[in-house]
Amino acid sequence: MLAETLSAIRPADPQALADARAHHDRLTKPRGSLGALEEVAIRLAGAAGVSPPPMPEPAALAIFAADHGVHARGVSPWPQEVTVQMVANFLNGGAVANAFAAQAGASVTVVDVGVAADLPDAPGLVNRKIAYGTADLSQGPAMTVDQAVRGLEVGIQVAKDLVADGARCLITGDMGIANTTASAALVSAFTGRDPGEVTGRGTGIDDETYELKVGIVRQAMRTHALAGVASSPSESLRALAAVGGFEHAAIAGFILGGAALRVPVILDGVISGAAALVSAALDPAVTDHCVAGHRSAEPGHGAALEHLGLRPIMDLELRLGEGTGGLLAHPTVCAAVRVLHEVATFDSAGVTEKQV
Amino acid sequence: MLAETLSAIRPADPQALADARAHHDRLTKPRGSLGALEEVAIRLAGAAGVSPPPMPEPAALAIFAADHGVHARGVSPWPQEVTVQMVANFLNGGAVANAFAAQAGASVTVVDVGVAADLPDAPGLVNRKIAYGTADLSQGPAMTVDQAVRGLEVGIQVAKDLVADGARCLITGDMGIANTTASAALVSAFTGRDPGEVTGRGTGIDDETYELKVGIVRQAMRTHALAGVASSPSESLRALAAVGGFEHAAIAGFILGGAALRVPVILDGVISGAAALVSAALDPAVTDHCVAGHRSAEPGHGAALEHLGLRPIMDLELRLGEGTGGLLAHPTVCAAVRVLHEVATFDSAGVTEKQV
Repeated sequence: MLAETLSAIRPADPQALADARAHHDRLTKPRGSLGALEEVAIRLAGAAGVSPPPMPEPAALAIFAADHGVHARGVSPWPQEVTVQMVANFLNGGAVANAFAAQAGASVTVVDVGVAADLPDAPGLVNRKIAYGTADLSQGPAMTVDQAVRGLEVGIQVAKDLVADGARCLITGDMGIANTTASAALVSAFTGRDPGEVTGRGTGIDDETYELKVGIVRQAMRTHALAGVASSPSESLRALAAVGGFEHAAIAGFILGGAALRVPVILDGVISGAAALVSAALDPAVTDHCVAGHRSAEPGHGAALEHLGLRPIMDLELRLGEGTGGLLAHPTVCAAVRVLHEVATFDSAGVTEKQV
Repeated sequence: MLAETLSAIRPADPQALADARAHHDRLTKPRGSLGALEEVAIRLAGAAGVSPPPMPEPAALAIFAADHGVHARGVSPWPQEVTVQMVANFLNGGAVANAFAAQAGASVTVVDVGVAADLPDAPGLVNRKIAYGTADLSQGPAMTVDQAVRGLEVGIQVAKDLVADGARCLITGDMGIANTTASAALVSAFTGRDPGEVTGRGTGIDDETYELKVGIVRQAMRTHALAGVASSPSESLRALAAVGGFEHAAIAGFILGGAALRVPVILDGVISGAAALVSAALDPAVTDHCVAGHRSAEPGHGAALEHLGLRPIMDLELRLGEGTGGLLAHPTVCAAVRVLHEVATFDSAGVTEKQV
């Protein structure tokens, strides 16, 4: 399924990009006056292969939940059972992601791809558990390459299913206590940045824990010989397996799945950014199908976005995950595309153009 | 009406601010993890005087349209009749503001407060014309103080009418060829910044026109002796009359009207920012009721927001006006408030808190 998906991904269509750009310049507004939003609409036209691109609604949020062996090292002040508790909170509609999804009119699907406990069946929960959490990435590989591929394929399948159910925009989400540690390691591996530059305080840690966290990421980079690893698809899979989480694998697959179906993907924060680096290493064309919903307060996220060449839509120092930053951006992405559908041209509206 | 409105404006309620802040800290998310969005929700609680504050929807956009005598000096490459043409475009639903309003579920009302032509009656158009455009601000006062007060009162009345019709959030919008020149003069007067720092290229001008524009703003500051003028309400009115536009006066009144009714106001770009400086000079408490929808590409806008102490929600280099930046921010403002209404607490959701 992975190979088939990768073979279906196309880069942005140059004609659709050019059409969208030309169309923008005929609309009743000064040229370029929508700033970065014009680029969002043009990007979605390129991704869809047609201008104007389809309206990116309704949106579907997938929250991929998993646990992390590295949690045992004390990198987070939150107990591991919070992953399970937050899954229940999502399913009961009580989390911030639910409130933001309601605002955006997005559906919420929770996917257990590696939570360290058995979860009772519930509407909205998809059981695709690969293992009861990853192994400790500082001691050995977090998962096997086979597990990493299975994680990717879970994400691809979820993307397919959501699109089959009518989604026209996919939003990435995550839940997993300690997953900013794995994210920092992935970002360091794929961008070549030093662990000290790309490791953040996650949901809130003190100086001592922060030093420990940076040290663990540094140790993982050495243990797995990951510096500059992302030079080939097979090395990328090895890096994902070495230090990633099951949710990183699944989100990377989810992005690939959206791109293969030409359905745009709005990326959330640092966990999604780390996963997007994996996707882009497997096929650089995938990034043409992504929009960066926001830039989080985590330093690794800025590094990931810079590496991917993506400009975030929102920049409000969120550091929550769950897909919250992606959901917030969704109405803006819709507004950007709506301009190409609905705004009158100078000719049609009888508006005089600027006198050059 | 102005005096009565000013007397009704209250600063943020300290108890509601404290309640909202405390409520945020009980919700199932790491403390502070919604970054600047937490402050938006807290601000609206303070403005409403209750936590959680009412959901700020539905929203109503008012586009105040007017012309400017300074246009004759050649400060804009757009012919003056574009103001009239764009009013027709708004009324036909063909402008970017219409597309963004549709996305946000906001109503659109166009108010002729000083367009330099007679406009045919149309649904959605409110005729409150004070004059056929202002006088040239570089030669003498753009309007009389009496006209400025009438402009303020037009805005107050529009705010009252929209709230009476059910609006629970007001969004400022403007249309007026050459109005970034008047905005730069107002920003310079009220912030004390040099005209060279706060004058921008508006909808797009070349270097020569830009130099002319800065020179005209500088000349206006001298002609009207406006440096450091904003020290009293009467001097503020004099400054507004000297260099403002009718739409600036009306937007300033619209902001006052919203604040007096404790209905939050989302500010658009540099024209709204300049108008908000006038409102704040008349009563500093008014700013507690405002949210900065975005920061535009105009340098004067950043200066205005800094002076007002407002952090913008969007920052995408828009430079269109019409209310587009305010409309884009509306779903995010709603999402921020929705968190206080809908997200579960640690206790209610059975989620374990961070171990300190």
